[in-house]
Amino acid sequence: MNYANLTLHTDKYQINMMYAHWRNGTEGEKSVFEAYFRKLPFGNGFAVFAGLERFIRYVRELRFDEDVLAYLAGQEERYDPAFLDRLRHFRFTGNVWSMEEGAVVFANEPLVRIEASAFEAHLLETALLNFINYQTLIATKAARIRQVARDETLLEFGTRRAQEADAAVWGARASYIAGFDATSNLRAGMLFGIPTSGTHAHAWVQQYDTEEEAFEQYAEALPDQVTLLVDTYDTLKSGVPNAIKVAKRMEARGHRMKAIRLDSGDLSYLSKAARKMLDEAGLPYVKIVASNDLDENIILNLKAQGARIDSWGVGTQLITAADQPSLGGVYKLVERERDGKREPVIKISGNPEKVSTPGAKDVYRIISKENGIAIADYVTLLDETDVANGEPIDLFDPVHPYIHQVVHDYKAIPMLKPIFQDGEQVYELPDLDRIRRYHREQLELFWPEHLRKLNPEPYPVDLSTKAWQQKMDLIRKYKFR
Amino acid sequence: MNYANLTLHTDKYQINMMYAHWRNGTEGEKSVFEAYFRKLPFGNGFAVFAGLERFIRYVRELRFDEDVLAYLAGQEERYDPAFLDRLRHFRFTGNVWSMEEGAVVFANEPLVRIEASAFEAHLLETALLNFINYQTLIATKAARIRQVARDETLLEFGTRRAQEADAAVWGARASYIAGFDATSNLRAGMLFGIPTSGTHAHAWVQQYDTEEEAFEQYAEALPDQVTLLVDTYDTLKSGVPNAIKVAKRMEARGHRMKAIRLDSGDLSYLSKAARKMLDEAGLPYVKIVASNDLDENIILNLKAQGARIDSWGVGTQLITAADQPSLGGVYKLVERERDGKREPVIKISGNPEKVSTPGAKDVYRIISKENGIAIADYVTLLDETDVANGEPIDLFDPVHPYIHQVVHDYKAIPMLKPIFQDGEQVYELPDLDRIRRYHREQLELFWPEHLRKLNPEPYPVDLSTKAWQQKMDLIRKYKFR
Repeated sequence: MNYANLTLHTDKYQINMMYAHWRNGTEGEKSVFEAYFRKLPFGNGFAVFAGLERFIRYVRELRFDEDVLAYLAGQEERYDPAFLDRLRHFRFTGNVWSMEEGAVVFANEPLVRIEASAFEAHLLETALLNFINYQTLIATKAARIRQVARDETLLEFGTRRAQEADAAVWGARASYIAGFDATSNLRAGMLFGIPTSGTHAHAWVQQYDTEEEAFEQYAEALPDQVTLLVDTYDTLKSGVPNAIKVAKRMEARGHRMKAIRLDSGDLSYLSKAARKMLDEAGLPYVKIVASNDLDENIILNLKAQGARIDSWGVGTQLITAADQPSLGGVYKLVERERDGKREPVIKISGNPEKVSTPGAKDVYRIISKENGIAIADYVTLLDETDVANGEPIDLFDPVHPYIHQVVHDYKAIPMLKPIFQDGEQVYELPDLDRIRRYHREQLELFWPEHLRKLNPEPYPVDLSTKAWQQKMDLIRKYKFR
Repeated sequence: MNYANLTLHTDKYQINMMYAHWRNGTEGEKSVFEAYFRKLPFGNGFAVFAGLERFIRYVRELRFDEDVLAYLAGQEERYDPAFLDRLRHFRFTGNVWSMEEGAVVFANEPLVRIEASAFEAHLLETALLNFINYQTLIATKAARIRQVARDETLLEFGTRRAQEADAAVWGARASYIAGFDATSNLRAGMLFGIPTSGTHAHAWVQQYDTEEEAFEQYAEALPDQVTLLVDTYDTLKSGVPNAIKVAKRMEARGHRMKAIRLDSGDLSYLSKAARKMLDEAGLPYVKIVASNDLDENIILNLKAQGARIDSWGVGTQLITAADQPSLGGVYKLVERERDGKREPVIKISGNPEKVSTPGAKDVYRIISKENGIAIADYVTLLDETDVANGEPIDLFDPVHPYIHQVVHDYKAIPMLKPIFQDGEQVYELPDLDRIRRYHREQLELFWPEHLRKLNPEPYPVDLSTKAWQQKMDLIRKYKFR
C-alpha cells in the first residue's frame, strides 16, 4: 500500500479538470483561488486558524510516482498517456499566501490565497480544505474550552473516539495551539513535541484483588508520576480513602502523589468531597483531575457550582467537535487569466451569502493606535495602497453600507503571509510554542465582547470601497447580461 | 517525521500500565479483553462492523523502532532502560477473535476478543477503538442511506469535510462496505480498489466566458465521462439548456452525455423539471445526479415527493456522521490470570448499563431452521457446548429474565472468527467485494422490522444462562464483600 503518498488525497474531478485544461491548452493560464468559510462554528465569535503546516508538507511532497500513474492509467477516463507523463513531472510552481496558524480569524475573509495555473490550483483544493476545515474547527473548539477553564490545566484525551488516526494527532496539535496543555496521544507527542499525560485505566484496578493493592503497585512502579483513577468501585467510600492510604505511604518513602482522577458520577459534588478528604488527610498538594464527556458548557457549569477540579481531561466532544463536526470552508476562483488578460470573476448564487467576492484580496487587521485594540478586519484588492500607507479608510458594513466610520489613526497588520513563491517555500515553519504564543497575543488584540463564547458581539470584517464596488459592478453586469 | 509508524497511536496510560506490569513482574499474566458498544448509533436497529483490516495491519506493523524508543526515553516517567529494551523486542504474541467486516452487529455483544498478556493487551486498546469506532460508525450511517436509496447509485463525496485524511479514505471504504457505489477520493480508490467518480467544479465554468463554452470544452476533453454541473448561474434557465445543446452536439459526434449534476436549490422541483427538459430533448439516457448536504432523511423526503434523481452524492453528513460523530465503543477486561489461575472479572458501575459481563465470551447468531431468519444473538461463555451441539437453548431478556423462549430447531452461526493465534495472523483478509457481499447476505437474515431506520423493533442479544448466572454471582459477591 502506497499509504504515505497523499498526492491522490483529492477528489477525482480535480484530476478531470486538470486533464480538460491540459487537453484544451489552457493548463498554463493563471488563476487565483481563495479559501474561506462563510459562518463561524459553534456560534463562536472567532475561529482559530490551523492546518497550514500540514498543507505545506503536503505541497512539498506532491509526487505522481509510478504507482499513482499506473492507477490513473487504469481509470475509465482513459487519460492520454502524454497527460500522465505531464503529471510525472508535476511540481507545484505557484504562489501561496496564508494566515498563520494560531491566528484569530473570521468568516468571509480569505484565509489562504493561491495564485497558480488552474492546472496546479485545482489539485490543491481538496487536501487544503480537508486539513484546514478540520484543524481550524478543533482549534476553535479548544479555544472555547480554554476560555472557560481559565488558568486550569487542560488535557486532550480523545484518541479512542477520534475519527481515525490522523484526526487524533492533528486534533491534538490543534488543541495545543489553542491552549491545551497536553495530550494523551503519544504519537502526537512524538511527532509535534506536545507534552503527554496519562494515568491508568479501570482494567488496572480490576487486575488486582483489591483497589488498594492496585494503587500500591502502580505507585511503586511510577513513584513520581502517580495519578490514581478512583471510581472503579466507589469514589468516596473506596477510591479516595485508598488513594489517601497510598499517598501517605508514598510520603513515608519520600514521594508525592500527583493527583486523583474522577471519571464518573457528579463531578461537582465528588470533587468538593474528595478535596475535603485530601485536605483533612494533609494532602493539599494532591490535585484533582476530572474527565467524562466534558465540553465547555459542562466545565462552565461545574465551575459555577464551585467544583474543586484542577485539571480537565476532554475527549470526544473536543476531538470530534461533536456539536458541529465540520467547518464549511470553501475554495473559490476569484480571478482568472484568459488570452493573457487577468480579470476578477464572481460566483452568483440565489443565496446572497454565497455570492463570492471577486478579485485577489489581502486582509489587514486594523488596530487603533489609541488603545491597541482591533477595530475591524479590512479586505482590500491587491493593488490598493491607502491602507498600507496609513491613509484614512472608510469602514462600512458590506450588507448595510450606510453603517460606516472613517478611521484615521490606526496600524494595519497584513494577515496573509507569503508561504510559497514560484513553488519555493519562503515561510519558515514556526515551532509549536511560538504558534501558541502568537495565538495568545492575537486574543489580546480584541475586546472580550467579541470573544465571548455565547452570543458574542460580531467583529466587523469589511470590504474596501474598491473591492465592494467591483463586486457590485460584477453583480450588475451578470444580472443584466 | 516518523509518521508511518503507528506504534505510539495509543494513550500514554497504556505504556504506563505496561511499565507497571513489567516492574511488578506481572507482564506475562494472561488477560481477556472484549470490545463492544453499549448503544446503537443514530437510533438505528443495527450497526455494520468495520475497521478490522486496519487493525490487523496495525498489529502486524507494531514496532518500537529506535526513534520511538528515544522518544519514550525522554519522558518524565524516566522508564527503566531495560523496559525500553523489552519494548525493542515487542511483538504481539496473543490471540484475537473478531466479527468480520460487513457483519450486522448489535449493542452489548463482543465485537473483538483479545487474549494476551496484560502487557500486550493494553497496548492495543486505543488503536483498536479508534479504528472500529470510526469505521463502524460510518458503515452504519452508509447502511442507513443505502436503505432509503434502494437501487439508486450512491456516491461518497465527503473528503473536503472529513476529519483529516485518514477519515476520508477509511470512511470511503466503510461506506463502500455498506453499499455505496463509488467515492470521489482517488486515494481511497487506489488503496482499496473502490470505484471513483467525479465531474467538475463551479470554477471550471467560471474560467470561461460562457457556461456553454465551459461545457463544450469539458465534453471535448472527456467525451465518454461527461457529467455537467448545471447550477453555476441558473439551473433551469441556463445550466440545463446549455447541457442539452452540448449533449446534442455530442450525439452528432457519436458520444453520449452521462449525466447532469444539481448542487443547489430545491432538488425535488429541479430534478423533475430537468428530467422533463431532457426527455423532451430526446435525451432520456442522461441521468440526474444530486448533491448538497444530503443525508438519509433528506433523500427519503425527496423521494417521497417524486424527485427524479438517479444518483446521490453524499458528503459531510456521511463522512463525519454529523448527527452522531462518535460511537462509544469500549474495551473491557473480562478475565484475568493471577498466580496462574484465570478468573472472570466484572466492572461495577452506579449506572446498570455500564456493568460489564464477566468472562471470555462467544457470540452465536441463532437462525430459525424453519424460515432462515435470525431469532437472536446468543452470548455464551467459551466452554459452553450446548449451542454448538444444537441442543435446545433458553433465550431470555437479561434485564427482564421472565421474558424467555426455548428454541429447538435452529442453526447457530459463530460470529467471532479467529484472526491471530499466538501472534500469527490466521485470518485471510477478504477483498472488498466479498465483504460487500457478506454484508448484503447478513442483511437478508433479519426481519425488516429490525432494520428500519426509524424506531426499529429491537433485535434480541441474549446471554446464556451460564453467562447470566456468573454475572449475577459476581455482582452479589461484589455487593456483599
